[in-house]
This record gives sequence, structure tokens and C-alpha cells, in this order.
Amino acid sequence: MSLRYVPYEELVRLRGLDADPVARAEAFADASRLNALYMIARAGSGHVGTSFSCIDILSWLHLELLGDDDRYFSSKGHDAPGLYAVLLGTGRLDFDLIHRLRRLPGLPGHPDLAATPEVVTNTGSLGMGISKAKGFALADRLVARESDIYVLTGDGELQEGQFWESLGSAANRRLGRITAIVDHNKIQSDTWVSEVSDLGDVEAKAAAFDWAVARCDGNDIGEFARTLSRLRERSPDGPRLIVADTRKGAGVSFMEPHDLPIDPTSLYGFHSGAPSVDEYERATAEIKARLDQRLEALGAAPVELADGSEPARSAAPDAPEKLIGAYSDALADLGDSDPRVVALDADLVLDTGLIPFRDRHPERFFECGIAEQDMVSQAGTMALSGFLPFVHSFACFLTTRPNEQIYNNATEGTKVVYVGSLVGLVPAGPGHSHQSVRDISAMGAMPDMALVEPCCEAQVRQAVEWAARQARGPVYIRLVSVPWELGFDYEPGELLTGRGEVVRSGEDGTLIAAGPVMLSQAWAAADMLAGEGIEYSVVALPWLRGIDGEWLAEVVADRPVVCLDNHYVDGGQGDAVLRALADVGSLARVVRRGVESVPLCGENDAVLHAHGLDAASIAAGVRAGLPSRA
Amino acid sequence: MSLRYVPYEELVRLRGLDADPVARAEAFADASRLNALYMIARAGSGHVGTSFSCIDILSWLHLELLGDDDRYFSSKGHDAPGLYAVLLGTGRLDFDLIHRLRRLPGLPGHPDLAATPEVVTNTGSLGMGISKAKGFALADRLVARESDIYVLTGDGELQEGQFWESLGSAANRRLGRITAIVDHNKIQSDTWVSEVSDLGDVEAKAAAFDWAVARCDGNDIGEFARTLSRLRERSPDGPRLIVADTRKGAGVSFMEPHDLPIDPTSLYGFHSGAPSVDEYERATAEIKARLDQRLEALGAAPVELADGSEPARSAAPDAPEKLIGAYSDALADLGDSDPRVVALDADLVLDTGLIPFRDRHPERFFECGIAEQDMVSQAGTMALSGFLPFVHSFACFLTTRPNEQIYNNATEGTKVVYVGSLVGLVPAGPGHSHQSVRDISAMGAMPDMALVEPCCEAQVRQAVEWAARQARGPVYIRLVSVPWELGFDYEPGELLTGRGEVVRSGEDGTLIAAGPVMLSQAWAAADMLAGEGIEYSVVALPWLRGIDGEWLAEVVADRPVVCLDNHYVDGGQGDAVLRALADVGSLARVVRRGVESVPLCGENDAVLHAHGLDAASIAAGVRAGLPSRA
Repeated sequence: MSLRYVPYEELVRLRGLDADPVARAEAFADASRLNALYMIARAGSGHVGTSFSCIDILSWLHLELLGDDDRYFSSKGHDAPGLYAVLLGTGRLDFDLIHRLRRLPGLPGHPDLAATPEVVTNTGSLGMGISKAKGFALADRLVARESDIYVLTGDGELQEGQFWESLGSAANRRLGRITAIVDHNKIQSDTWVSEVSDLGDVEAKAAAFDWAVARCDGNDIGEFARTLSRLRERSPDGPRLIVADTRKGAGVSFMEPHDLPIDPTSLYGFHSGAPSVDEYERATAEIKARLDQRLEALGAAPVELADGSEPARSAAPDAPEKLIGAYSDALADLGDSDPRVVALDADLVLDTGLIPFRDRHPERFFECGIAEQDMVSQAGTMALSGFLPFVHSFACFLTTRPNEQIYNNATEGTKVVYVGSLVGLVPAGPGHSHQSVRDISAMGAMPDMALVEPCCEAQVRQAVEWAARQARGPVYIRLVSVPWELGFDYEPGELLTGRGEVVRSGEDGTLIAAGPVMLSQAWAAADMLAGEGIEYSVVALPWLRGIDGEWLAEVVADRPVVCLDNHYVDGGQGDAVLRALADVGSLARVVRRGVESVPLCGENDAVLHAHGLDAASIAAGVRAGLPSRA
Repeated sequence: MSLRYVPYEELVRLRGLDADPVARAEAFADASRLNALYMIARAGSGHVGTSFSCIDILSWLHLELLGDDDRYFSSKGHDAPGLYAVLLGTGRLDFDLIHRLRRLPGLPGHPDLAATPEVVTNTGSLGMGISKAKGFALADRLVARESDIYVLTGDGELQEGQFWESLGSAANRRLGRITAIVDHNKIQSDTWVSEVSDLGDVEAKAAAFDWAVARCDGNDIGEFARTLSRLRERSPDGPRLIVADTRKGAGVSFMEPHDLPIDPTSLYGFHSGAPSVDEYERATAEIKARLDQRLEALGAAPVELADGSEPARSAAPDAPEKLIGAYSDALADLGDSDPRVVALDADLVLDTGLIPFRDRHPERFFECGIAEQDMVSQAGTMALSGFLPFVHSFACFLTTRPNEQIYNNATEGTKVVYVGSLVGLVPAGPGHSHQSVRDISAMGAMPDMALVEPCCEAQVRQAVEWAARQARGPVYIRLVSVPWELGFDYEPGELLTGRGEVVRSGEDGTLIAAGPVMLSQAWAAADMLAGEGIEYSVVALPWLRGIDGEWLAEVVADRPVVCLDNHYVDGGQGDAVLRALADVGSLARVVRRGVESVPLCGENDAVLHAHGLDAASIAAGVRAGLPSRA
């Protein structure tokens, strides 16, 4: 794939054009579009639609407004490629990083200050932006630091309660250093905001919370600049909010949703993911043509692109386990046979596999928007009303944002099934806001809740059916989203509560894991060890809690056990194994391996290796033996 | 203490009066006030102010409006005594339960459907009400059930984001079966809502979210009834919200806040807790006089009260450890010496011990209102700005509601100290919404976070200083709120990271616990066992994570270990002990004891016993020995 970017010298030239600042910013924004697109195409993933909708605003802020002490950050976070393009283009980031989006080391999929000190705070989980701005503003007041704070929010994220929770005290405390800008591109992850959970009159709402509010075209830099300036004059001492009407994918005609029907089942195609070769070429051509036109109007030469192509990536695996697809079918089928089943979604209908259920059971499908607490509490009273709710989001959000609501439901003794996808370290491109490695712990002490993580498509169906038919209380189903090859043939037997299966036998010890990622590493590690004459069993153990200790003690006998967690090592399956064995007085020694630091962002293999959770690291750990005191 | 209540026959007489329904409801409401007050006085705790502010509304709804299929519930939940009084008075609850508020079995401190089937959903953690109402309404639609749903909210709870998060889809989906009533008594836990985090124009806000809104005097039953009726006519098909202006403590002149200065440091005296003898007598006399006047005006005889006195309770312990007081002093002192320290509170300035800090360092104290997510995210950026935030609430809320925000902060590598009070099973009167037995698990996999639970006043100060001076990352300090006697003399030595102290030596095994509640039980259990010749060590181990395994393995040697958790047995300190011992290959056998079901509500001793966590149960467990396979 031939990839091109605007090199730094060209960006310097654009920034130095002797022209009206707005015209200069317009050119810079288009150059940044080319670079954001380049980064996403090269990374193979990233959020182009939202990067493009806000890049005009970002360009103006970073070229003309932000002083050294001022702060800008994006609450939505997933517009990181747009932000990086602007930071790279203004010399705020080492330009070589343009080639390293979602690589290790490099630029994370969502902003992270450990990786990128120019980022002022970590974002990527929605709704926190105004609160964060307030913390900065209050701290600044304490030290009499005079600086402005600009925070960009999405529009979908205004469905989050924390956004509204945060507005009041900003007004009450007259935090006049804060300017919030809503990138109101009208489209959230899947489709139109109005069809997911309509926001109503955002201006009226924010005004009711005593913020000074203005509205403008956020893709018209001149209008945005004038609106911002007037709003500051109108409200110099209190917090300000601009509703910036933008177009998702702005600047590339076919990425803008002109032809997307306003219908809940429409799917916008450019929220996340890399463009195809054709899309990349057409988008690049369109942006470059417009940029060159702008430059010509300014009497400047066309922009010269540099080549950033790289060799094709290794092919995708042959026959990966696609757990989300399997879940998708299993839930829709369950809906056919069980009229109690209702499904609730938080704006991830595509990623959580809910389209078949929605299409087959539209009256039992509830799109809740990005409002996880609201979703979970609704599920609770639906369960009290006799329904069997399946509740969905990415695990990082589902198990934490509504954590108290899940507990509240659990105290009612009803059955609600929580289905968290995107679990574990991989895909490692989005970064730690999306890598769910804390969900077992967060769900681990809910009363009577079963926790199960299937490793293959067949086991996903078993888990869904077990949850509906056998579970006595609530259930958490933990699903790896990235298609992943197990590396061995596995036809799971009946799913027995608390028990797993020995998928490979060896006399020297036992590797235990759940889910395809760690099981594949366990198998590959066992292969490596076997090559050296060390024979390890591998146990596929889908239960993350409530493990049958008698069964397990017999399986592992008194041989060493190594637990592999696609999760923090504290609070993961390894703890459940320890508990199960301790409760039956087993003498087996247990070593736990898992994540021990904030998850890194990068390519999957590199990240697994960096955390010591690739097969080679695991094999080396086993080889090095148990602790010497053992 | 002489206690009186309105017996059931008298309530039947009031309900049967041949009078205007409003006048009848007014008399019934005052009778219910007498009974709510009786219940609270007898229980020794409960929320009188909020019960009285809404009892006129509750009386009207339950006497005149609610049909068999209709649902009413209170989102705030702590008005349970008011609700129970009305349910008892209308024959919806077994009247004998009037004597059993906060007893086991009996009427829980917050509504719980397992204990009281007349309750339609569990409440007590704020902000969930509208979401719950929506779940009922959507379920009803699916089965074409036609019934009304009334949900009462507090006004302080409107600071919670979930409230606003929940409004939008109710309007978008036209959930016209829902009527929300805001008990707008203007006072939250500590003081005036306007001084904690002013709500601004609630009517305008709710209207901006497309709800039909009306306002009335909520202690004027006639006006409330007319307003409700007109609002239904005006908006028959969409959700409705009534802002009911009420008086906290309404109906008892000295419980109404007429003389409370509108100032952030004012403290309202009747939010929770039992009245004194004098207060009880004066309040009862005032309510009864008014009630008798009402009855006289209706041509009816005065009400006859029944005697509900009971023997005095056992005396309070002599020298209990008062951890909140110790924390209060330690934090204020730390504030003197360390200018980085800021304190954030979520409307619990009294209960979390923040008044001395606020008084000594007013500029570094931030009252955030009931807005835990907002509070935690603000603390995060304050930490990024160089401050050292101490963040406070009850542990049940602090560790769960903003769980994702705490994680987000942790990924930034800053130090924030979270201080959760009211941890564990006791006090057991408030019920499971407030008994924090899941917080270790919820905080247990935060990167680099230390978890520490002090057992005595001296250790609280050590923990605060350790957090400020030695901890490298964030810290969670877990504090038992109820004054509690250890039962043995303990002067803790230096607080060593990951280590505890052997406070009693024995050769037969080791009891391990953190915090005064479980340590006192451990000591008493060891005493009982010693009487039978079984000698157990007791280890005071304040660390709930990151235990020094080498130290612990040496302490416990290969003798049996019994871990006692004032927490769910999964995810508690017992897990951390297992991990520490496993990581060093210890052969000690570990038995974990902790909470295994939803915490019961009742008197402290009864609840500890019911969960098998009193000294006698623990001793019996040790006596019965380790599992037979061990």
C-alpha cells in the first residue's frame, strides 16, 4: 500500500505563509488531515471520522490561540490521530513519531501522557473532560496561575451522566478559564446521535446549567474564531461552551454522512478502522487537490508529499476464533427460543455483535446510548419485571462505569447477564482506556455472580446458553474481541459449572488459562517446553470465579501450576485458582502471570511480549522454575 | 426511654374517617410521622428529616392514588422510615414490624425487596431512580401492562450524573407512565444544597431535557394533589416531574431548618441519627397536638398512642477506637505541614471527618456535592498540577461509582489518596447499600495502588503519613466508621510497607485480620480457643494488597492460617494473603472467612453472627478444623 504524508518542512512552510491566519489555518488543517489519514492507514486502525470533524478547530487553537501555559485536551480522546497530526505539524511532537501511531514505542491510540508528555491528561473513556478541566482550573487558582483551559468533547459523550454532573460547579465556582467545545458531528460510534439517544437542545441544556453558550460551524475556521472571541467577551468570568456544528469525516466528501439515512439501523462507515486502498487514494487525492487550491489562492506552491509506504503486513491468521460473531449468533438464537431475553446496548451495536438480535427481535432491543449507568439500572428493573436482560458494552466501560449499579442489581437476586467485549491486552492499539485488564477484579465480588470467559466460538454459545438456562444468579461473560487463532484443535465438551478441560497432558506441570489469547500462548509455550523435554499440561478453564477445587486439585495433582491472566495479575483468574486449591487444601504450588503495569499500546505481539505474556516469555518463566524457596 | 406509637386500629380509624380526602391524608401523614419517629428512636438511628419532608406526599400517593398494579419507590431510599410508616399504616406491611426497624429480621435501613417484598426495587445509592423507573416502564410496554410508576428523588441526589443521564431517553421514548417527584427540602446530608453544590434552576433544567415540569408545596397535600392532577392532564403521554418544595423535618418546628444560617459551614442536625429523649418528647408532643387538632376539626376523637418502650440498651464500649476522629486530626495536621494536600468531599464532611481540615485550610477544601465521578476526575488533574488530593466518601460509593475515574487517574502515574469510610458489615443498620464489603475487590487491581486498613487510632495517623510521604502511587485508606473496641491493648510499631505485627502468639495457628472489627473478633476467638487449650496467634495486618510474602511466611511458618475479612470472601484480604504466600512458595494452609451473601441489616452483633464473623463462629470454625482433605 502506497502511503504519503506531508513532511515537516512543508508544514513549516504552510505555517509561515504570509497570509490571513484563517486561510493559513485552513491549509494547515488540510495538511493535517493528510497526515492523520496517513497515520491511521499505516497503523491499520484509528478514528478518522472524528479526527476530521475537529481538525479545523484543533488547527486554529494550536496555531493561533494556545499560549505556553494554556492547556488543550480532548475529552473524547479517540480523535488522537487528528490531535497528533496537529501537534506534529506545529513542532510539539518529534516528527518521526508520525510513522508510529499505535506502535510500541509510539503514539497511543488514545492520548496518554506517559507516552506523550505533550498530552496534559489521559482520556479515552468518555464524559470526564469538564471535570478534568475543573481540576486544572481549581489547582491554577490555588497557585495564581493564569492560563486557559480548552476541552473538546464529542456529542455522543454528552449522553454520559458525568458530563452533566460536572457542569454545575464550574458555573457556581465561576471557572472562567474553561472553554468547552462540543465537536457536534451528529454521529457517534454506530450511527446518528439522534437515532441512538437524541440529545435534544444542547444549547438550552447547557444554558440551563448556567454556562455561557454559543453555536457555530466548527468546520468554518473563521466563524469558529469569531464565535469563540465573542463568547469570551460576553462571558469573561464564567465557563463557556461552544456547540460547534461539524461534519464527521469533514473534508473528504465520501466520508461525510451526506447520504446516510437518518435511521437507527444506518451504520456510518468511517468511525474507526483503516481505510481501504481505494478509500485512502480517493481521500488523499481530494484533500491534496483542495489544499493545493488553497495554496494557489495564497500564491504558494503545491504541497510535496513524502513517501511513507512500508512492506505489507503479515497475513491474517487462517482460522481464527471470532468470538463476537459467535456471540452474535448465539444471542439472536436464544432470543428466538426465549421470549424473556432482552438486549441492551451502549452505542456499540456493531462491536458487541447485536445487529442480528436487533434485526430479529427489534421490540426487545434497547439502544441506550453512551449511558452505561442508566443502561444497567434499566436492566435491573427489567429483570425484576420478569425479563432476562443481556447488557453490553466494551468490558472496560461496562464493568467499571456502572459498577455500583451492577452491584445494586445483584442485591435484588435477579439474573442479569453482562457481556463485556474487547477484554484483555489485545487489540493493543486503542490503548489502556480500552484494554480491559481489571474487569475480573471489578466484577469479582458481586454476590452470586458467575464469571466466564470462553476460548472459542463453540464455547461462546455454551456460555450464553449456560447463562440463560443454568446460572442461578447474574453472569458476566468476558469476550476477547480480536479474532484469534488458538493454535490447536479444540472441540469443547459440555460446559460444566466450575470446571474446564485438559486440552494437553504433560507430567511436569500445568498451564491454566481462559480465553483464546492466553490459551494460545499457553499451548505455544507448552510446545516450546516440550521441545526441551519439559511436558506441561494445558487446561482450558473458562471460569474466572467459583472454580471447582476438588476437580482442579485432582487435575493438577501436586505438580506446579502456572496461571496465565489476560488481566492484572492481582484479582484475575490466578486468584480464583489459588482460592479453589486453598479451599480444598491442595499442596500444588501456583505461580501467577499477568499484567503488572498499565497496559502498553502497540502492535499485539509486541505488547504481549512487553508484558511478558507471549509464549516465549511464559516458557522462559516456566523454565526458570518456581521461586527458589518453593 | 418511653416510646409511643399510633397502633394499627387507630390508623384504620383515621383512614376510615368520613372526611375530605386531603384532610384525611393530612391526619394520616401526622400519624405516620409519629410512627416514623418511634421507629427511628427505637432503632437508635435512621433518617428523620427526609422522612418527614416527604411523608405528606407518600401519604397522598398511598391513600388515594396508587392502584394495585402501580409502583412507587424512593430513589433516595434513606426516607425508608417514612415509607415504612405509610406502608404499615395502610396495611401493606405486617404491623408488628413497626418495632423492628434496623433489626434482624425486620425493616432494613434502606429499602430492600428481599426483606420487604412490598418494596419494588432496592435503593439507597443515589441517582438510580429514573433509570429504574424506565426499566419498569419499558418492561410494562413489552407485556402491555398498564400501570403508573411514581419515583421520588431527593434534591441533593440531583447532583449525581446518572439523574441527568437518565432523563433524555425517558422523554425520547415518551415514557408517559413515569412521574418523578423531587422532594426538594433544600438540605442534603450536611447542610443547604445551595451551599454544597447549588442546583440552579431545577425546573429549567428538567424542562430542557424535555420533561413536563410543575412545582408546588410538597407539604401541602391539597396543592400537591392538584398539581399532580393538572400535570398529568398537561402531559398525558410524556414523563412528568414535580419539583415539590418541602421542608426538611417538616411537621416538627425545631427540626425544620428555619434558623439554620445559609452558610457552607452550617450543619443540619436531623439528617440522620436518633433523637435525644428531649427531642423525642417535644417532637411527639407537637405532632400529636396538631394531629388531635386536625381530628377535632373533623369531629373525631384524639388519637390514642400505644406504649412501645423497651429496656435500655447495653452501654457503649468504654474505650473504643474512633478511627474517623483520628483521621480527622491526622489529615488536618498533615495539611498544616504539607501545602500540597487538598481535600475533596462528596457531601459527607461530618461523616468523613473533614471539618477540622476545612476549618484550618478552607482554600484547599473542595466540597463537590454528591458527584463522586466529578470529584475523582477533578482530583486527578489537581494531582497532575502538583497537589496531593485526599478524596472522601463512604467506601460503598467512593470505590464503585467513580471506579473508572479512579482507574483513569491511576494510569497517569500520579498520587491520589482515596479515603473510604463506613467500610465493612458494621454499622449494620443502614443496610447493604451502605455496607461496603466489595471495596477491596473494586480497588484491588488498580495499577500501583496501595490498600491499607488501619485497626486503631494510632495506625490511622501512620497510614495517613505513609500515604503522603512513603507511598509511590495512589493509596486507598479503608476506615471502619463505627467506634469499636479492639479488646486488647495495642500500640502499633512503625508501619512497615507490606507487613503487620503479631499481637498475640500461639503455636497452633494464626488468625489474620485488618481493621478493628475483625481484629477484635480474632482476639476474642483466640481467647475462646485458648480456654480449650488451642493457642492461636493473631496478626494485625493492615495491608490489603502487596503483602510481604517472605515476612508473612516466616510469621505463619507451616501452621494453619485463618484470614478474616470484613468484606466478601472473594477479593478480600484473604486473597492477598494467599497470593503473598503462594508467591514465596509457602506450604501454609489458608482458610478464608468473610461475607458470602448480600450483607444483612440489623444490630451489629446479630449481623456479625449471621454472617459467621463473630468471635464464637470464628472459634467454632477453627475448632472444626481445616477441610478434611488438608
